[in-house]
Amino acid sequence: MNLDALYSELTLKTNAKVALIVLDGLGDIATAEQNYLTPLEAAATPNLDALAKNSAQGRLIPAAPGITPGSGPGHLGLFGYDPLEFQVGRGVIEALGLGVELQPGDVCARANFATLDANGIVTDRRAGRIPTETCEKLCALLAAKIKKIGDTQVMIRAGKEHRFVVVFRGKGLEGPLTDADPNREGFAVPVVKPRDPESLKQKKMAELIAAFYQTALPILAQEKPANGFLMRGIAHQPEIPLFEDRYKLKPACLAVYPMYKGLAQLVGMKKIEGPQTIAEQFERYLAEHANYDFFFIHYKYTDKAGEDGDFTAKKKAIEDFDAALPILLQKTPDVIAITGDHSTPVSLKGHSWHPQPVLLHSKVSGSDKLERFTETGANSGSLGVMESKFLMRLMQANARMFDKFGA
Amino acid sequence: MNLDALYSELTLKTNAKVALIVLDGLGDIATAEQNYLTPLEAAATPNLDALAKNSAQGRLIPAAPGITPGSGPGHLGLFGYDPLEFQVGRGVIEALGLGVELQPGDVCARANFATLDANGIVTDRRAGRIPTETCEKLCALLAAKIKKIGDTQVMIRAGKEHRFVVVFRGKGLEGPLTDADPNREGFAVPVVKPRDPESLKQKKMAELIAAFYQTALPILAQEKPANGFLMRGIAHQPEIPLFEDRYKLKPACLAVYPMYKGLAQLVGMKKIEGPQTIAEQFERYLAEHANYDFFFIHYKYTDKAGEDGDFTAKKKAIEDFDAALPILLQKTPDVIAITGDHSTPVSLKGHSWHPQPVLLHSKVSGSDKLERFTETGANSGSLGVMESKFLMRLMQANARMFDKFGA
Repeated sequence: MNLDALYSELTLKTNAKVALIVLDGLGDIATAEQNYLTPLEAAATPNLDALAKNSAQGRLIPAAPGITPGSGPGHLGLFGYDPLEFQVGRGVIEALGLGVELQPGDVCARANFATLDANGIVTDRRAGRIPTETCEKLCALLAAKIKKIGDTQVMIRAGKEHRFVVVFRGKGLEGPLTDADPNREGFAVPVVKPRDPESLKQKKMAELIAAFYQTALPILAQEKPANGFLMRGIAHQPEIPLFEDRYKLKPACLAVYPMYKGLAQLVGMKKIEGPQTIAEQFERYLAEHANYDFFFIHYKYTDKAGEDGDFTAKKKAIEDFDAALPILLQKTPDVIAITGDHSTPVSLKGHSWHPQPVLLHSKVSGSDKLERFTETGANSGSLGVMESKFLMRLMQANARMFDKFGA
Repeated sequence: MNLDALYSELTLKTNAKVALIVLDGLGDIATAEQNYLTPLEAAATPNLDALAKNSAQGRLIPAAPGITPGSGPGHLGLFGYDPLEFQVGRGVIEALGLGVELQPGDVCARANFATLDANGIVTDRRAGRIPTETCEKLCALLAAKIKKIGDTQVMIRAGKEHRFVVVFRGKGLEGPLTDADPNREGFAVPVVKPRDPESLKQKKMAELIAAFYQTALPILAQEKPANGFLMRGIAHQPEIPLFEDRYKLKPACLAVYPMYKGLAQLVGMKKIEGPQTIAEQFERYLAEHANYDFFFIHYKYTDKAGEDGDFTAKKKAIEDFDAALPILLQKTPDVIAITGDHSTPVSLKGHSWHPQPVLLHSKVSGSDKLERFTETGANSGSLGVMESKFLMRLMQANARMFDKFGA
């Protein structure tokens, strides 16, 4: 039997309030250089410690053993969707990251400004990494001249340096397509093709991309070095079962950065705008307590510090989080999970595959009798080492939302 | 490759004696109210402690993370059958629980006496919870007048209060059907339908249920308040590969309660009747040692105490079990697994999803160097947190029943 169908069949609506708190990139690895302490272990976290005493712990594998996820799969897993089943194109992730309010059916492409020679051969795939301001100027130029192709609306958004995003909104569009990118210099930009040769919608989309090139290239012809561009990850927003339908929990997102708001929006969470700090996010949780059943609260700074390889900053980010935690506990959610979407070890300066520590607290979580919330402690927690996608189901169980299976 | 097929291909017959000992509902959770000790942790268990020193430990997830199983899925998992793949209808479980000796193809329905008004509308789904004696009297009345419908034999067995079971034995019958139960008062009893509209056997079965209603309702017409009845979970005994064929182990069941004998019978175990206490069950194991390879020994009282929310009684049940254990060890089985079918935490007064502690002992189990058998200790055992269905395979491995896979 399909497991999601079984969960669905057993789900009962309750009045429980459930909070998923994601410290982005929380997990880390212990190294000799840092005296075998992770930032979480080195940080002073009196409030997390108090919670740990009455919680279950374990570790989460975001997608599969050894796989380092981006923010997309990392969060989809935490939202309870198998990231291998529900794949989100990079164009969609980039568009979400730039704050584009996507609609179902929108096709997104990740694009780079590039340098072409007189014969259309790519001589620099990143156009010398033009400054962000130049990128913004060029995007504004394109956006001013290309608002529609036929009936299809075209939206162009600048990213950092040479990066931008193109969103196509219209009827009967679909991805994925092959890339308009030779992936190395010395070759022409290939014409995109449907990934599924039978799909008429993909065929239409491929024609739109061709038309977009035909219109846009002349506009850039006199630019130096950005007289061309590449497009990749061309795909539509995938159909993902709505969070509220799937879990019978009315969800709200309290995130500061557009990418995470976008990912929450992808599964139908309501975005609550305004709060800029974790204290403000928790305050807003208190204010919105009655209006939702599920709160996704995202904290970015652990990941940032990990990406920078800054141990002290990551430790400080955790301590800042801990200091704000009592605000949340003024109206303690019935179920609290605290974890990361992936590890971002300081020593790696980037995302990694190492499992996340997770803390799960409720009146019925039981206690693993751990004095603190740490990677090493979580290894001996009762949740074991499991895939992230099961966390939502354990949260539902702790919210007493599942009927008994079988007699 | 199908994993069961691989196990099967690698299985060798040995002379090992294997014992699966189920303390029903053994697992519990540590709470502040009980000083962070589970009943297993609070109990004095010198004999389990001695065994633990030379055992591997871990935790078992009965069906899937967060799922609270009934006894059926709980035991099927321990018998090595995926409870999501092999689902047993509630009618079958209830019939087994009432001690009906089911045969392959029997279709069972769980039934309730109910009160109907003059228009056939259900006014009380439980007929005022009539006393068990009334239920027995009405079942006898129905049984006396309805022995067969066409070629199909009909068996009616009273349960507790308003509950009873109807078993249909004949050729070409099959479930599952929809319920003859509006699930709330104020509605008529719906006509049952095949779950699979294409199944002729289900169609035949639905017609039999209709005929049963037609015959039975007039018999009850003058009764008050039980002038009607509802039927649910109408399904046949599923086809389950026989235990002995699957594991090359000749199995015996030493259980006291009918439900567990029934579940053992479902997979073809031989029921050994007679023993009423765990000491008597172990004594009987000694007597039957030469006659079987595999002994399923079921102990009910841990679950009962958990359901009653009685910490002291659960602790005492564990201590009583421990005191009897030396009898078993007079002829120590080559492989011993001690676990539960699910958790029944005292603080929840019912089954739960929390993983079971499991202890696995053999000459080749290795030692996890744990001084005791407890939930918390088991968290850091070498078996990890795994699905129950793999325990049988680990028992086979410890019985040296698997050839090497690959060169």
